[in-house]
Amino acid sequence: MKIKQILCAAFVAAGVAAGFQGCGAPSSSADSAQEGRIIELPVPERAAGQTDVLNLATEPIDTVRVAFVGLGMRGGDAVRRYTYIPGVEIVALCDVYEDRVKASNAMLQKKGRPAAQEYFGDTAAWRRLVAQLDVDLVYICTGWEWHTPIAVEAMKAGKHVAIEVPAAMSVDECWALVNTAEQTRKHCIMLENCVYDNFEMATLNMAQKGLFGEVIHVEGAYLHDLRSMNFAQAGEPGHYADMWRLKQNTHRTGDVYPTHGLGPIAQILGIHRGDRMKTLVSMNTDQFGMTEYARKKFGDTSAYAKTPYRMGDHTTTLIRTENGKTMMVQHDVTSPRPYSRIHQVSGTKGFAQKYPMTGIALEADNEAIQGADYQNLSGHSYVPRATFDRLMEEYRHPVIRQVGALAQEVGGHGGMDFVMDYRLIYCLRNGLPLDMDVYDAAEMSCLTGLSELSIENGSAPVAVPDFTRGAWNRLRGQSYAFTAADAEALGIAAAAGE
Amino acid sequence: MKIKQILCAAFVAAGVAAGFQGCGAPSSSADSAQEGRIIELPVPERAAGQTDVLNLATEPIDTVRVAFVGLGMRGGDAVRRYTYIPGVEIVALCDVYEDRVKASNAMLQKKGRPAAQEYFGDTAAWRRLVAQLDVDLVYICTGWEWHTPIAVEAMKAGKHVAIEVPAAMSVDECWALVNTAEQTRKHCIMLENCVYDNFEMATLNMAQKGLFGEVIHVEGAYLHDLRSMNFAQAGEPGHYADMWRLKQNTHRTGDVYPTHGLGPIAQILGIHRGDRMKTLVSMNTDQFGMTEYARKKFGDTSAYAKTPYRMGDHTTTLIRTENGKTMMVQHDVTSPRPYSRIHQVSGTKGFAQKYPMTGIALEADNEAIQGADYQNLSGHSYVPRATFDRLMEEYRHPVIRQVGALAQEVGGHGGMDFVMDYRLIYCLRNGLPLDMDVYDAAEMSCLTGLSELSIENGSAPVAVPDFTRGAWNRLRGQSYAFTAADAEALGIAAAAGE
Repeated sequence: MKIKQILCAAFVAAGVAAGFQGCGAPSSSADSAQEGRIIELPVPERAAGQTDVLNLATEPIDTVRVAFVGLGMRGGDAVRRYTYIPGVEIVALCDVYEDRVKASNAMLQKKGRPAAQEYFGDTAAWRRLVAQLDVDLVYICTGWEWHTPIAVEAMKAGKHVAIEVPAAMSVDECWALVNTAEQTRKHCIMLENCVYDNFEMATLNMAQKGLFGEVIHVEGAYLHDLRSMNFAQAGEPGHYADMWRLKQNTHRTGDVYPTHGLGPIAQILGIHRGDRMKTLVSMNTDQFGMTEYARKKFGDTSAYAKTPYRMGDHTTTLIRTENGKTMMVQHDVTSPRPYSRIHQVSGTKGFAQKYPMTGIALEADNEAIQGADYQNLSGHSYVPRATFDRLMEEYRHPVIRQVGALAQEVGGHGGMDFVMDYRLIYCLRNGLPLDMDVYDAAEMSCLTGLSELSIENGSAPVAVPDFTRGAWNRLRGQSYAFTAADAEALGIAAAAGE
Repeated sequence: MKIKQILCAAFVAAGVAAGFQGCGAPSSSADSAQEGRIIELPVPERAAGQTDVLNLATEPIDTVRVAFVGLGMRGGDAVRRYTYIPGVEIVALCDVYEDRVKASNAMLQKKGRPAAQEYFGDTAAWRRLVAQLDVDLVYICTGWEWHTPIAVEAMKAGKHVAIEVPAAMSVDECWALVNTAEQTRKHCIMLENCVYDNFEMATLNMAQKGLFGEVIHVEGAYLHDLRSMNFAQAGEPGHYADMWRLKQNTHRTGDVYPTHGLGPIAQILGIHRGDRMKTLVSMNTDQFGMTEYARKKFGDTSAYAKTPYRMGDHTTTLIRTENGKTMMVQHDVTSPRPYSRIHQVSGTKGFAQKYPMTGIALEADNEAIQGADYQNLSGHSYVPRATFDRLMEEYRHPVIRQVGALAQEVGGHGGMDFVMDYRLIYCLRNGLPLDMDVYDAAEMSCLTGLSELSIENGSAPVAVPDFTRGAWNRLRGQSYAFTAADAEALGIAAAAGE
C-alpha cells in the first residue's frame, strides 16, 4: 500500500492521470457497509521515542536570524515586511534568479540594513544555504513543489521553518513534515495569512465566546480568477517563474489551494484541538475556462489551447468532523467572478459571513450577549451597521489589538501578512508555542491529495488522517499565546497550556 | 433489489433509521473502481406502449375547472390568487378541517364567486373528490406525505395535477409520478414557484443568451429558520397541521426540501433538456438546533427536548452532471441565519448570485454583450448598480413581461406565486406544453431520497436516475411556451418544439 501510494504521487507529478484511479483501495478493516465505502490511506507508525509536538515551545531566541528562500511575489514582499519587525536579522536571501536576490538586497541596504548573504543560480541553491548557514528560521516562499523538500531538509539541519501555502502537495508530504517536526522538535508553521485577517479573527473570538452557540457548519474558499497570471509569460506582470502554477492546472486536479478558506474555519471548529476532520468528499467540474481563455489569448491552434488541462475549473469539498460538524471548501481560479474566501460560520445561536458582504446575525435570546444592550436582534436578519461595528470593536481579537495598527502601516494584503510575520517572530523570541503547528500545516494541505483521490474515485468518501495520531482531543480550542506582561496589558489570560 | 428498496421506504416512514443503512447496495454491473463505488438504484422498465411525455401538450381547455386539496398556508392563498386568473372555475375545496374549507368558500363568495363544492372531515376526503368530481386540474397543497398518492389517483381519474413542493418524498414516489403521467398522458407539474422569481428568470434569460459563457457551476439552497413553525402547536401562528413537518425532522434525514434552490439552477443548466444530473454526494451535520430550541421552549425534561431528531441541521448535496457541470444544494431549516436560496451561477464569461446580495459580474470581452455599450466590465468585480439595473431591464424574462405587473398586484411571495399560477392556466387554456413537466418534478424531488441514501452510506456517491429513460438529450434548454400572438407581441419565438 505504501509503495502504491508513492507510485501514485509519481504518476500525478508526471501527469499520468489514468494511473491514479486505483490508488484509493478501500480499507480492508471495514466492518460495515458505510466504512467499506470510505477510502482510507495507511497511517505510518511513529518511530520509537518519537512523540507529538502539540504546544511545542522552544528556547527563546533574542534575535531571530532568518533566511528567505524564494523571492518571487510572496517572498520579495516578506523580506520588506521583516524589516519592520524588531529582533530580526535577515541573514540570507535565496532564489534561482540572481536579479531577485540582488533586488531584495538592494532594498535592505536602502533601508540601512546590512546586506544579506546571497544564494542563487540553480534549484540547488537552497541546499547550499541549508547546509552552510547557521540560521534560526528558514522562510520558504518557492513554488509549491519545493515547499516540503526544503522544509524537511531545513528542519533536519536544525532550523525552524515557515512555509508558504500549501505546505505540502500530497498526503505523503504531509506525513514527511509531521514526522520530521516530531523527530527534530523544530517548529514547522504554514504561513496561512488569512487566519490573521481582522474579520476572521473577530469571528473566531465571537465563536469562542459563544456568540454563535454551537457552530455546526462552516464554509471557506479560494475563488480568485488567476487566468491572466497563469498564462503570463516571463516578463509579463504577475507571472509565475517558469509558469509553475500552470503546470499544476495541467497535471493535478482537485482543490490544490485549500488553505486560505480552510484555515480560519478550522480554527473556529478547533480542528485537532477538540475536533478533527474525519471524512471528505470532493467533486469538480470538467475543465472549460482555461482552454477558452487560451484560445482567446493564444489562438485556437496554439499549444496552450490544445493542452488537456487536468484540473476541473471548480472544485467543492465537503468535510465531516468527528463532532458531527460540516465544512465546505471551494476552489476556482479559472472563472471570472469576484474574489471570495466565503468565510461563513453557522451556529445554533448566530451566523456570520464575509463574502460577498460582511454580515452577522444573532438570536435575541443568546446568553453570550445578554449583558450587552443590543436591540432587536434576530437570527432572520443581519444586524444593522451600527451594531455590526460595535460587535467588531467589542470582539476585536487580542492579536489584532496587539499588532493591528502597525500592520496597517506596513501593509501586505491589508495588514494580515504583517500580523502573521509579527506573531511568528514574537512567539519565537518569547519561547511561546506558535499560533499554528505542523498538524495545522498537514491538515490544511492534505486536502490537495485527498480531494484529488476522492474525485478520481467518483467523489467517493475519503478518510482524513489524524496527523496527531490520537492526540486531536488533548488541546481545547485554538489559542494565541502571549507573554504574561502582554496578556495583562491586553486584559486576557496568558499562554494557553494543555 | 426492488423489494429491498420498498422495505427501506417503509423503515424510513416508521423512523427506523438503522434499518436503512444497507439499502444502497452497489451496482453489480460496475466495471471500474469508480463505478463500483456508486450506489445505483434500479430503473423500472416502461410498460409496453408507454412513451415519454416530453413536450406534452393537451387539448386546449376554455375554462379550467380546478379542485384544491389542502387549504393550509399554501392552499388557502392559492385559492385567493386563482380568483384573479381569467378562465378558471373553482369547482371544489377539500381539506381535513371543515373550518378551512368554509373560510375559503366564504372568501370566494365575498368576491362574488359561486360557492365551491366542499370536501372535508378526514384524510379520505380527497378520495371522494377525485372519484366523484369532473374537474380538469387537481391542485395539491397538502402535507408532503400526501402529494404523490393524491396526484397518482387524480391522474388515473383523468385529471391534470399540480403538486406543491416537493412532489415526492422518495425515488419510488418519483417513479410513480413519472409512470402514471406517461400512462395517463396527463400533465403533472410541481408548483416550484421560485423559478418564477424575477432575478432567477432574468439569470435564466442571461444564461440562455450567453452572458455567462459556458455555465460550469451553480448553487441553490433552502436556508430558512423554521424552528418556531416546526414547534408551533395547533392554534399558534404558522403551525403545520398535526405538526407534520416536525415529523419529517424526527424521522427523515438529508435534504427533504431541495426544490426551491434546485429549480432555477436546473433550468439554467437545462436538466433533461441537453444535460442531466448524473451523480450526487450528500453530507449533513449532526442535529443540534432542534434539541437546543426545544429545551429552551419546552424545558429540558419535555418530550420535545428528549426526541432524537434524525435530521441533521445542515445538509449539503453536490451533484455532477453528464456534461461535467456541478451543482451545490443546501438545506437548513433549524439554524438562525438570514433566509437564502443562494441562486448562484458561475460561467466562463460571467457570474451572478442573489443571496445575500444580488450581484452580476461580466467579463469585458464577452461576445454576447459586445453590441451594448457597457463600460469597464470585469469578471473581478460586480457591475455597478446602474449597469445592474440596465441588465435586469434588458434581460427581463418574457414571462415576467407577460404577467409581472399583474403578479405584483396579486402578490404571493412577491408575485412569483401568481406568475406560476397564471402560466399554468395560460398553457392549459392554450394547449401549450407546461413550463415544467413530470421529469422536473421527479428530478427535483428525488434529492429527498437520494441525499438520505448518500448520507446513510457515509456520503457515498449515488447515481441519479434518468427519469426520461434515455430522452434527456432530445430537448434543447428550458423553454416557456407562448401562443403565436403573444410571442409576436413580446417579440420572441413562439412555443418551442422538440
